[in-house]
Amino acid sequence: MDLNKLLSPRAMAVVGASEKEGFGGDTCRNILSYANLDHVYFVNPGRDEVFGQKCYKSLSELPEAIDMVVVSTPQRIVPMVLREAWEKGARGAVVYASGYSEVGTEEGRAAEKELKELCKELDMALMGPNCAGFVNYIENTHAFAFISEERDRTGGVGVVSQSGQLCLSLMDSPNMKFSYAISAGNASIVSMEEYLHFLVDDESTKVVGLYLEGVTQPDRFIEALKKAALKRKPVVVLKAGSSEKGSQVAASHTGSLSGADRMYDAIFKKFGVIRVNDMEELLATTQIFSTLPELPKQPTFASINLSGGETGMCADLGEAFEIPYPDFAPETVARLRELLPSYASPANPLDTTATISYDADVYADTLQAVMDDPKVGLVIIGYTLLMEIADPCIHYMTEGIEKVVAKGQTKPMVMMPFLENTRNPEYRERLEKLGVPVLPPPVYGFAALKYLKEYLEYDPGEHTLAIAVPEAADLDEAKTLSEFDSMQLCREYGITVPEGDVATSADHAVATAERVGYPVVLKVASADIPHKSDMGGVKLHLSDGDAVRNAYQEIMANAGAKAPNAKVDGVFVQHMLEPGLEAIIGVNNDPQFGPAVLCGLGGVFVEIFKDTALLPAPFGKTEAEAMVRELKALPLFEGYRGNAPLDIEALAATIARVAKLAADNKETIRELDINPVFIYEQGKGVCAADALVVKA
Amino acid sequence: MDLNKLLSPRAMAVVGASEKEGFGGDTCRNILSYANLDHVYFVNPGRDEVFGQKCYKSLSELPEAIDMVVVSTPQRIVPMVLREAWEKGARGAVVYASGYSEVGTEEGRAAEKELKELCKELDMALMGPNCAGFVNYIENTHAFAFISEERDRTGGVGVVSQSGQLCLSLMDSPNMKFSYAISAGNASIVSMEEYLHFLVDDESTKVVGLYLEGVTQPDRFIEALKKAALKRKPVVVLKAGSSEKGSQVAASHTGSLSGADRMYDAIFKKFGVIRVNDMEELLATTQIFSTLPELPKQPTFASINLSGGETGMCADLGEAFEIPYPDFAPETVARLRELLPSYASPANPLDTTATISYDADVYADTLQAVMDDPKVGLVIIGYTLLMEIADPCIHYMTEGIEKVVAKGQTKPMVMMPFLENTRNPEYRERLEKLGVPVLPPPVYGFAALKYLKEYLEYDPGEHTLAIAVPEAADLDEAKTLSEFDSMQLCREYGITVPEGDVATSADHAVATAERVGYPVVLKVASADIPHKSDMGGVKLHLSDGDAVRNAYQEIMANAGAKAPNAKVDGVFVQHMLEPGLEAIIGVNNDPQFGPAVLCGLGGVFVEIFKDTALLPAPFGKTEAEAMVRELKALPLFEGYRGNAPLDIEALAATIARVAKLAADNKETIRELDINPVFIYEQGKGVCAADALVVKA
Repeated sequence: MDLNKLLSPRAMAVVGASEKEGFGGDTCRNILSYANLDHVYFVNPGRDEVFGQKCYKSLSELPEAIDMVVVSTPQRIVPMVLREAWEKGARGAVVYASGYSEVGTEEGRAAEKELKELCKELDMALMGPNCAGFVNYIENTHAFAFISEERDRTGGVGVVSQSGQLCLSLMDSPNMKFSYAISAGNASIVSMEEYLHFLVDDESTKVVGLYLEGVTQPDRFIEALKKAALKRKPVVVLKAGSSEKGSQVAASHTGSLSGADRMYDAIFKKFGVIRVNDMEELLATTQIFSTLPELPKQPTFASINLSGGETGMCADLGEAFEIPYPDFAPETVARLRELLPSYASPANPLDTTATISYDADVYADTLQAVMDDPKVGLVIIGYTLLMEIADPCIHYMTEGIEKVVAKGQTKPMVMMPFLENTRNPEYRERLEKLGVPVLPPPVYGFAALKYLKEYLEYDPGEHTLAIAVPEAADLDEAKTLSEFDSMQLCREYGITVPEGDVATSADHAVATAERVGYPVVLKVASADIPHKSDMGGVKLHLSDGDAVRNAYQEIMANAGAKAPNAKVDGVFVQHMLEPGLEAIIGVNNDPQFGPAVLCGLGGVFVEIFKDTALLPAPFGKTEAEAMVRELKALPLFEGYRGNAPLDIEALAATIARVAKLAADNKETIRELDINPVFIYEQGKGVCAADALVVKA
Repeated sequence: MDLNKLLSPRAMAVVGASEKEGFGGDTCRNILSYANLDHVYFVNPGRDEVFGQKCYKSLSELPEAIDMVVVSTPQRIVPMVLREAWEKGARGAVVYASGYSEVGTEEGRAAEKELKELCKELDMALMGPNCAGFVNYIENTHAFAFISEERDRTGGVGVVSQSGQLCLSLMDSPNMKFSYAISAGNASIVSMEEYLHFLVDDESTKVVGLYLEGVTQPDRFIEALKKAALKRKPVVVLKAGSSEKGSQVAASHTGSLSGADRMYDAIFKKFGVIRVNDMEELLATTQIFSTLPELPKQPTFASINLSGGETGMCADLGEAFEIPYPDFAPETVARLRELLPSYASPANPLDTTATISYDADVYADTLQAVMDDPKVGLVIIGYTLLMEIADPCIHYMTEGIEKVVAKGQTKPMVMMPFLENTRNPEYRERLEKLGVPVLPPPVYGFAALKYLKEYLEYDPGEHTLAIAVPEAADLDEAKTLSEFDSMQLCREYGITVPEGDVATSADHAVATAERVGYPVVLKVASADIPHKSDMGGVKLHLSDGDAVRNAYQEIMANAGAKAPNAKVDGVFVQHMLEPGLEAIIGVNNDPQFGPAVLCGLGGVFVEIFKDTALLPAPFGKTEAEAMVRELKALPLFEGYRGNAPLDIEALAATIARVAKLAADNKETIRELDINPVFIYEQGKGVCAADALVVKA
């Protein structure tokens, strides 16, 4: 499949061209408003003209071959039109019709399957079905089914959306400028992953925006994210389904299964993808990346405002959104004291007071002084740009910004308004040309800056840019390994486990105990008995042969009495560990994205505070250590209340080994639980006290 | 002081009237644009006319007495003008001039002090200094120094702001409609608290919005909040200083000390005040309260949208903002199945699909069906209202809403757009007249709905609407009580403490141990030794007379050796408690707002997860229990991991007793720490194992 034929056609046709309101008519209206009509053909068996343009009776009559066809016809004739278009050379198609898998009926699913098969046969890159089409703003190709206000929208944001309505909303925002805007609909032939690849490759696209309900080819998705990470092209995703109800809506909307939402978060983190919460955040964040002439050299910020109230708000919200405002250097403070009125305090965030905003030179000098501060990466200019300019200060401020930009020693800038308002188009455009995006109000604006900060802090070199996508994992059948076998598997991967063995007689148990060293613990060895303690199947603190002998007999007697149907392999004799801080390490195998490793401290930390870190395998020790360091419980590892610091390094090494175990066994492992793993003092390592593996 | 003379004057004058740009000229322009000129006089010794209106040389020439004067003159002649105005009957004044305490100089502070004394002498209600004035929209009184776009702004939101710029930004938003908009400036004569009282009393004000940097009369502030809570008039506050840097900015802006921010949060919670994060949230929240014809009867929500993407987003963001979407009742589902296309799923949030939005009757019936659901309190209509109406569906939707409103069986509705956009004024007005506010995009919109939900859940009857403001607490001198005295104070307030006494000899210690019962613990009794364990001053688990005797001697020897200069009262002999779950109860006395009680579980819960609840004293047992129930650690009290449930009731009773102790001692107590208090099984109570009181 060649997406270039679809998205960048040399010649195209609209079948179902019309003058009516509706998809066909609006597509024609869009073409007539924006596009160059050379090599664009209207087709409708019932018309000679559409809006004064020649209309052909059928595709076969067209004077030249086409690359792409827009099919605006009822669902039932779509296959016929596609075959005709193929005859005419088309290898790309946009299909608006709905009635496919999204309706949730047997019939709908069958129609979509048939369409997929046809496209495979014809090698046809089909957008949709159930979509609103696309616009290629760079080459002025319009294949879009909704009308919006006329204006120039050409810019650097490439958008793909699984919702036509959301795509249209973005196109209607006065702040968005696109390379491509694609409403992908069901995305069942050309998938979301393929559009993502296209936009990551496309040189006119500075930043990719995605509204995603689900992924169908996890491996292609990951390849695209890896490519984007290595190219340093930002990908901003609004993903549906962070809530249970949201997942259900996504499933019934485009038939997408959104999968485990937390897994997406973990993948996005690994690949430096920015996840946003709504369209406005998507807009603000992509706008920053597409408008700034260059990204800040460091993720640090200065805030400058005309009033104390605004400055205070920037201070408070900055902290809430973890925006670092470094203190100004002494030279900066001295320079600002010269420039500002005596009653202004030259701190960051800075209240310049309104006076300086009526003098372009002083404003420019102030801005330059702040920019010259070695600790500042980006300057946030607080100002509520209104539709009607009642106060002339914006004129002087803009002139000041122009002066600074003209001198060339600038750092990136954004404008932060304090209220929703229509923005004066003249000044918005002028600021945008200077490379200064005008953000939405603070809660959105600071969220977008936080995403920028996190993006700047992300280094693809610090991450294993792969995940262990299972090829054909069938994890439905579950088989729980015995504790002994689970421990053995851990041991094979270099994970420290206590010495131990399964004994099948009291003598054997004593011999084993002597070999592994006292004290020992005895546990009934049976995969059929899940809660061993409850039925008297565990004996702790055994420190001599007699104790071991008695314990063996009691355990076997209890097992016989309380679990008569369980298959009992004997008794697991283990050296009893000295207690340490208890952590857990777990693995869950996502049906789409493969195994991910979870770590955290045990007990209330996991159960009440949900204080865990999750990372898809494979990954190395450095990434594992970063997981531990992101736990809220970190202070407990670092010498809490005068205790010695614990062996974070050994824990990280163990987590990384679990990741390797999980990745190597991606087709068969279903779950792994090491609970607890004891963490000892620095240099003394860790030891897995209990392990349980469930295989498919 | 009579705020009516200031805010609702029968006649007024502007001294410093002019045609220039600037405060005086813009005040005149505002008056000429909006106000009735009867009883408004312009005064300027240098002019005969201002914009064609007669201008008087001095206040003494005016043909009638005035209630209020706007002083737009240089700072130095302000006192003279005030005296002249007083002669002419004025008891209210607006002073724009700056150069007072906000500049942070000795001179500035002196000028403000002088102004305050003058106003006291003249009984003059003065707004400012360093302010931008006010507008009384109800009576069309304009005393405001900034120009904004002309439009009708009369409505139900009363705003007071300590920042003129923020006040102006609100006035410039096309969505705000006011009863009063007041820029209070330094608020050193008429305080923020007095404006708040005025607006809470004012019948034309449906909701109060406050931008607050600090409070000067805590008792008046609390009275106003209490009055608002009992009247059920919502108060929405944007308070500066949630961050360290924000507090510093507020201090240098209007000279306000913002105080301990967390104390404000606790007070706001007690009085049902809504705290917002920025101006846009203030706008959206006040707009909901001022526009809805009545508040929802229950804090539950239904979301209806035209597309799956939007519906999914409402589901996800609804969960993130804790918006409850009850499942529809079977009758509602059945009714929706009749109304909606077969492929729509009648769930909440609801994707109606776009089709129904082109038929006003079906849209009305769908809306009515959702409203009739017994579990729904408010309906969120998702739709991105644009400036240019490209899609006619909003017409049918609005007609549908009109039909529903006309039938009269409605529930409250809001419109939720998905992107920032200019809103079509015709439809916005039409919807507003129908009682449907158009909110900002989702992250703001859902935040505002969350505030609404919390407001609906608040019941003033469940709260002790008072705080223990100290009258003249001088808490600088600190005196730490001994553990014995601290325990005694607790005991006086009915707090369970272990039996014990201070022994001054080994025999005495043994006798005391026998009286209180073994096992006992011995601790050195000295207010001069803070870390008793570290110097061998604590002996635990003593179970007979010999052990007590030895321990006594060791402790006294250690004290003599390691703390030779400490005053030692003897050894504290205490019955040793059985361990229980460890909680802490603390008191801190805020210099402005008095003592507040903090509770939480000890150790990592407080230190790492900051899982504590704070409530200003006084309060009763029910409120104390609510504090415990708001802890994240609550599951540990409720029978965690098969343990017996703990005695929450006894803990609550103890917390309430601490609150009484704190309130009774508000003038003298500085700190109290009960750490730990042991919590036992239900019915077995709690016991304070250690207590420390610091008094002034």
